[in-house]
Amino acid sequence: MAGMLLFGSVLGEARAEEKNPSPAPTPECFSAQTVRELKQLQEAALKSDYAYRQVAHLCNNIGPRLSGSAQADKAVEYVAGEMKALGLEVKLEKVMVPHWVRGEETAALVQFPGQAAETTQKIVLTALGLSVATPAEGLTADVVVVKDFDELESLGREKVAGKIVLFNHPYDKAMAAQGRSGEAYGIAVAYRGDAPVAAARFGAVAALVRSVGSADFRLPHTGTTKYLDDVPKIPAGAVTAEDADLIAYLAPQGPVRMRLVLTPQNLPEVESHNVVADLKGSTNPEQIVIVSGHLDSWDLGTGAIDDAAGVAAAMQVAQLVKQLKLKPKRTIRVIAWMNEENGLHGGKTYAAEHAAELSNHIGALETDGGAGHPLGWNMKGSRELEAFLAPVAKVLGAIGAGLLSPAEHTGADVGPMEPAGVPTFHPIQDGRTYFHYHHTAADTLDKVEPQHLAENAAVNAVLAYALANSERPLPR
Amino acid sequence: MAGMLLFGSVLGEARAEEKNPSPAPTPECFSAQTVRELKQLQEAALKSDYAYRQVAHLCNNIGPRLSGSAQADKAVEYVAGEMKALGLEVKLEKVMVPHWVRGEETAALVQFPGQAAETTQKIVLTALGLSVATPAEGLTADVVVVKDFDELESLGREKVAGKIVLFNHPYDKAMAAQGRSGEAYGIAVAYRGDAPVAAARFGAVAALVRSVGSADFRLPHTGTTKYLDDVPKIPAGAVTAEDADLIAYLAPQGPVRMRLVLTPQNLPEVESHNVVADLKGSTNPEQIVIVSGHLDSWDLGTGAIDDAAGVAAAMQVAQLVKQLKLKPKRTIRVIAWMNEENGLHGGKTYAAEHAAELSNHIGALETDGGAGHPLGWNMKGSRELEAFLAPVAKVLGAIGAGLLSPAEHTGADVGPMEPAGVPTFHPIQDGRTYFHYHHTAADTLDKVEPQHLAENAAVNAVLAYALANSERPLPR
Repeated sequence: MAGMLLFGSVLGEARAEEKNPSPAPTPECFSAQTVRELKQLQEAALKSDYAYRQVAHLCNNIGPRLSGSAQADKAVEYVAGEMKALGLEVKLEKVMVPHWVRGEETAALVQFPGQAAETTQKIVLTALGLSVATPAEGLTADVVVVKDFDELESLGREKVAGKIVLFNHPYDKAMAAQGRSGEAYGIAVAYRGDAPVAAARFGAVAALVRSVGSADFRLPHTGTTKYLDDVPKIPAGAVTAEDADLIAYLAPQGPVRMRLVLTPQNLPEVESHNVVADLKGSTNPEQIVIVSGHLDSWDLGTGAIDDAAGVAAAMQVAQLVKQLKLKPKRTIRVIAWMNEENGLHGGKTYAAEHAAELSNHIGALETDGGAGHPLGWNMKGSRELEAFLAPVAKVLGAIGAGLLSPAEHTGADVGPMEPAGVPTFHPIQDGRTYFHYHHTAADTLDKVEPQHLAENAAVNAVLAYALANSERPLPR
Repeated sequence: MAGMLLFGSVLGEARAEEKNPSPAPTPECFSAQTVRELKQLQEAALKSDYAYRQVAHLCNNIGPRLSGSAQADKAVEYVAGEMKALGLEVKLEKVMVPHWVRGEETAALVQFPGQAAETTQKIVLTALGLSVATPAEGLTADVVVVKDFDELESLGREKVAGKIVLFNHPYDKAMAAQGRSGEAYGIAVAYRGDAPVAAARFGAVAALVRSVGSADFRLPHTGTTKYLDDVPKIPAGAVTAEDADLIAYLAPQGPVRMRLVLTPQNLPEVESHNVVADLKGSTNPEQIVIVSGHLDSWDLGTGAIDDAAGVAAAMQVAQLVKQLKLKPKRTIRVIAWMNEENGLHGGKTYAAEHAAELSNHIGALETDGGAGHPLGWNMKGSRELEAFLAPVAKVLGAIGAGLLSPAEHTGADVGPMEPAGVPTFHPIQDGRTYFHYHHTAADTLDKVEPQHLAENAAVNAVLAYALANSERPLPR
């Protein structure tokens, strides 16, 4: 019933819009020439395989790009080189990043109801990012399964101390299937972040979570976890959905004992870089429009959808402007961020070091939701943005990407600029399958649909160029 | 166009059937009482969770059941115990089986175009069943990618000797999506079976295949490979679809060198067993109807769809007949076969040792295609089967499972009885997702939909009881 009402309401809105169509392009905001150029950019993007070739190189020739790795450095060098080759002014801006290195990660149930003598059941899992290690030979303890933090509290220290706690909180696939994968992620990811602290407070020796994601292919999802200084740091991992189900099936039947080996290392911070590449504005070079993605990735896959796709879509904005010989009035700054995944040091460092210039940052775009078909843009900033950008939305609407939605959050790396009033933007991307692959070994090139990636490059090019060439700066 | 014509033709046939409906139940074949009992069995099966609980126990409490393993023995003991508890006469019939044990299996590209210094790209793979091992420290060689056997031949010994050959032949997902997953499997699996011999003939040091299956979750599919006595035995593995794509992307750009470690062991054959459980016929106990699945599984997953589901559907036939207190005239023999996966020694041994009685084997049913919704039965035997079984098909038709199709192949384990004229049967199951999971770590309990499994138990019970209670034996 609620669904029916919602549907009716949406139809009603659509009809209202027909009667009161979007305002016509406002000459003060975007010249007819600029609108024509936006359409050229959009068309050229859809015909290009430039972005796809960038993703292929980053994923296949370089590989996983975890902060602090040789591959992350190589990717910095590669993107800088490509941007220089296009004629941009490139700076590598120093960022100190965590250097966490995955080790062995194996687990097995060594005692469980019904087992054949001298057998174990393999448990497929992965260490959570920044996790501390077990002893090299592993630890062995009984497993306690809880559905949520409340159930953990209800058990109390007596039933938890000395045990491995498994938080068996499922990712909501039904929510994701209806296009709300981000919200489904937001709910489940609380366990990935807070499990080790919550479990350690009750004396647990390790914390496991059910993988945050929608795949059912025995695929563990990694991601960063958190510690507090005043709570013992215990090893943390993510088991696959299937392994969580297995343990949850066995536990009510009798003791379930696990041997757990996780040997990651937290090494000293190392120097890395944001790649900052400027296509200088012709009349207002000091005014800056950022278009960006993050260059680091998790280490299990090759980071195609997270986030080579975002970096490539940003790189292509510069490539298209050059290809079409356009002259943006303001500077278009392509940024490949470092360390989004396990620290956000790139975004934080940039906002801190450029604090004095942020009043001249017109807007900051980031693409970090894969390469699914875009429907438009999520926006964080002034309530006037929607009206101001209506002519841009009209151009994007021709490829089904004309939605402009106010949002609480856009991109993680551009977030640190928001307190300074910089409007931020993130494309509204089809995320229905994004969390099948997110932070897994299966985040690989084949997950990027070339035509959808080209659409993301198109919406980046159109919005970035519009902000760089509007007749007056974007309202703040 | 071809699709349109086909659709028209199918509709035409359907209309013809309306005008000439199936023959009415033939009193000589099935009594009215029997038909009533078939309907009772069908209804009771759909309400029962017996089969699902069996699958859960086999997969979760026992685990993977590769021939020769302690878990396979435990499963034999478990099924025998369950059948005894139902009041069946149970024999464990000795079968000598291969004892192949998986070892370490890792691979990495150690040289490839564009790589960052001192990095490698991880390759996800699994050893093929019965594969010989690499040296313990692995072997390192250049990789040659071929699409098929023809391309291998065209390269010749000069370009293949000393190399690792990757057969990058994709599983046809479009074919599978249209319900022809078995055919898609049949085409691709030729490489899994014949790759090591084909590659070794040209001097290759190892053979890899692109995994035979439809998943894109970085999931390798195992399965048996083959050797010939007069060709060097080289190690053989299956890489994931993604890893095959990666290597195929890099190879045209320059040398791709792999370090490959596969350390499985082929141990001496060991004794294992078929579980043979008889629900004795009341008037013709010497006449036998087999209902079966195979108890062994691959070792990566827990063998839920391959083939705990088949074993459980067979077990439930006995359970339902007992529950409803029915008295079959002929003997219903539940068999849990051993060693379907890597030798078929169970099926072959049974056919050999029961050769003298096969003339009294009325029919042999096997379920080994997962637990997808059944549409009816594939049949291998006399052309008269369809007419004879029309009244049974009518009962099954009430749950959408009334198709009777002549087939070239039914179940693997019942195949060795076919030369003796035993009619064999395999349910027509929805296999559209079967090869996502088949022979992988993701063949786990959650892949079994309880209601679909109950439907498979229902069609087994209806057909087996019909064959056991027909007024005259099934035509041969």
